[in-house]
Amino acid sequence: MNTLHIAGGQVLRPDMTVESADVLVDRDEGTILETGTLDADATETLDAEGCLVMPGLVNAHCHAAMTLLRGYADDKPLGAWLQEDIWPAEAALTPEDVRAGTELGILEMIKSGTTAFADMYFEVPEVAAAVEESGVRARIGHGVVTIGKDDEAAWADADESLDIAREFDGAADGRIRTAVMPHSLTTVGEEYLHELAAEAHDDGIPVHYHANETTDEVEPIVEERDERPLAYAKSVGMLTESDFVAHGVHTDGEEIELLAEAGTGVVHCPASNMKLASGMAPIQDMLDAGVTVGLGTDGAASNNDLDLFDEMRDAAMLGKLASDDASAVAAPDVVRMATAGSADAIGLPGGRLEAGAVADIAVVDLDAPHLTPANNLVSHLAYATRGSDVRHTVCDGQVLMRDREVLTLDEETVKARARTAAADLFERV
Amino acid sequence: MNTLHIAGGQVLRPDMTVESADVLVDRDEGTILETGTLDADATETLDAEGCLVMPGLVNAHCHAAMTLLRGYADDKPLGAWLQEDIWPAEAALTPEDVRAGTELGILEMIKSGTTAFADMYFEVPEVAAAVEESGVRARIGHGVVTIGKDDEAAWADADESLDIAREFDGAADGRIRTAVMPHSLTTVGEEYLHELAAEAHDDGIPVHYHANETTDEVEPIVEERDERPLAYAKSVGMLTESDFVAHGVHTDGEEIELLAEAGTGVVHCPASNMKLASGMAPIQDMLDAGVTVGLGTDGAASNNDLDLFDEMRDAAMLGKLASDDASAVAAPDVVRMATAGSADAIGLPGGRLEAGAVADIAVVDLDAPHLTPANNLVSHLAYATRGSDVRHTVCDGQVLMRDREVLTLDEETVKARARTAAADLFERV
Repeated sequence: MNTLHIAGGQVLRPDMTVESADVLVDRDEGTILETGTLDADATETLDAEGCLVMPGLVNAHCHAAMTLLRGYADDKPLGAWLQEDIWPAEAALTPEDVRAGTELGILEMIKSGTTAFADMYFEVPEVAAAVEESGVRARIGHGVVTIGKDDEAAWADADESLDIAREFDGAADGRIRTAVMPHSLTTVGEEYLHELAAEAHDDGIPVHYHANETTDEVEPIVEERDERPLAYAKSVGMLTESDFVAHGVHTDGEEIELLAEAGTGVVHCPASNMKLASGMAPIQDMLDAGVTVGLGTDGAASNNDLDLFDEMRDAAMLGKLASDDASAVAAPDVVRMATAGSADAIGLPGGRLEAGAVADIAVVDLDAPHLTPANNLVSHLAYATRGSDVRHTVCDGQVLMRDREVLTLDEETVKARARTAAADLFERV
Repeated sequence: MNTLHIAGGQVLRPDMTVESADVLVDRDEGTILETGTLDADATETLDAEGCLVMPGLVNAHCHAAMTLLRGYADDKPLGAWLQEDIWPAEAALTPEDVRAGTELGILEMIKSGTTAFADMYFEVPEVAAAVEESGVRARIGHGVVTIGKDDEAAWADADESLDIAREFDGAADGRIRTAVMPHSLTTVGEEYLHELAAEAHDDGIPVHYHANETTDEVEPIVEERDERPLAYAKSVGMLTESDFVAHGVHTDGEEIELLAEAGTGVVHCPASNMKLASGMAPIQDMLDAGVTVGLGTDGAASNNDLDLFDEMRDAAMLGKLASDDASAVAAPDVVRMATAGSADAIGLPGGRLEAGAVADIAVVDLDAPHLTPANNLVSHLAYATRGSDVRHTVCDGQVLMRDREVLTLDEETVKARARTAAADLFERV
């Protein structure tokens, strides 16, 4: 059998306990065969001595290609930032730019232990090519905006999202899944939302959209329809068990109930919500209500990195402030959110290190001053670990990074191409 | 002349602009001789190709030895956390433990580009020894608590803080400065505060204390005295230009005016304030009023690292939420806070990279995926850089870390000693 042996480490269990164990992976099937004290004669071995072996992190909401815009426009509120800076720059992006930016984003994610992500962008065939080449897992799709477009252009955009979702679902040996992605409840008209959700669900494809990120995404809906945004989302068919909502910052108690009843996942993006002063999502309330909560970095222009270790820390920190309670959103909660919570929210396998699960794994080196002493490793993951502590990254049974060297992408080439693409872009806009 | 040449990088100027320049250091004087295009025949050279050369970061409020308690007690509010976990553990610390924890903290700081810090703890001769050995700069002192003590014990504690401050001021060739450190306005009685401030100021020594961290540090004072805590601090003589206040979370407009008029520095500790759900400090209001604001990590038990890059990011993020304005506490503001702001707040030289300044310098390697593309380097410092991107650290003209290898402390020995100390400690408590 074609196996990978991750040897000598401590393993993070789905119940957030830690124990010394080896991990044996079936590389052909891309699954975990067993964990425990193994005397394996494996095809390939990864040294995990002094390391914590954990599920690969899952970035449940991002726009990977926006790495090209990292640091381009900071310290501005969401509306002005989108209209004055981000949208004009994005309008100038070529397919090659999207490829370069997505590869840079994936490179950064592999180097910080992320093995899967949900991506909303455009020029999606380029995103798919980057996912296929790099070996990660992703749910990808084309973001639709209909406001400001005539009917023909709006339907063309909506159809592109459906076509792309149908074409790429199951690509890259099943590592690529798709979603239909209307941008938000305020930037896509009701008839389009209705049609997109119905057609997507007919084909077993989920809907991924922004909702309740700022009060500007809540108040117009309440004024026009006399109902909250997530009640509206339900009425157009976008609140099913497979669908997932990014942000959900300004979400009230009834909406939390709707999410819990429907089984719709919420992707919390604390860094972006802070940086754009969007607000504080009621994450502890969502967890208490049984909502599936994942974690996302959002795009690099509003974060400005794609490091889920930063995001876990931010989620724990912000969750306490939002609840005015230092015991809220505790360390195990955020580690669960960044692994099983995210995987479940976006409907990808992963997030749990156990026999039978997909072999999506991050190996964290614990031998750093900032992780010493090892009083509590789950606390260290939530509060003190940074992406650069990740030593090996494995996805679908394949080693993507060994001893900090990424094997599926050439790091220098990816960085050089992104630098050139960004420099050219900012000459054009 | 005995010189150090930092060659081939880009330099961060005090006005937050960046330009390509070499830096020449007088190693004997510990000062920067000049910056620019230099053809130096130096005694020692540091390669800064592809790097940003910036002032060493200044951690303006911490309890370095608390690294031993990293991850020991998370997700609890300040009062319970102190009384149930932290104070019992601290009561069991030996002088050797304080030495081990302080060395670990300094090791972590050197590795993340911090060259100076203000430390409030006990067993201060051990702290001084760690500072002297490691080559960093620090303002240190003994924390005084008088509540719950009889008069004799309380005066003994107060006298120890004065004696320590007098004994160590100017030690380690002037790298060590001191302060008198009453723990807070609610844990030290009025007569002690008055005496400590008067005696300290007579000897030219500042006062460093916690204030307005939580509402529990405000309301009892307002109830008892019918005045705000910082008005009370002024009345006991602790609001002079040399003094500095940690936290200042719950600070109203009149108190901000008092701080600005007095020239008293405030040390913002955003991570600790979030983790303990203490609240959001009005930092943009303080900056607008002209208050000198620095940045501190607080202890590792409430953070849980001593990485000022994390703290800059947290300060920018939290500042926007506190002001409900995404343009508040912008990237240049937090970089200034972590350098010149901190140095000025705690009254140590440093925080500015220019001819004549002390040669306290961090060299940040920009060649990482998460710092690509280099659209805006000040933004990258605030939002995307992590401590592990620091390549070289220099303090007082001496190279403390070269190519990530710390030269003044033996990293493996420091980590091993801290692990043993923590393990022994948690057997005792």
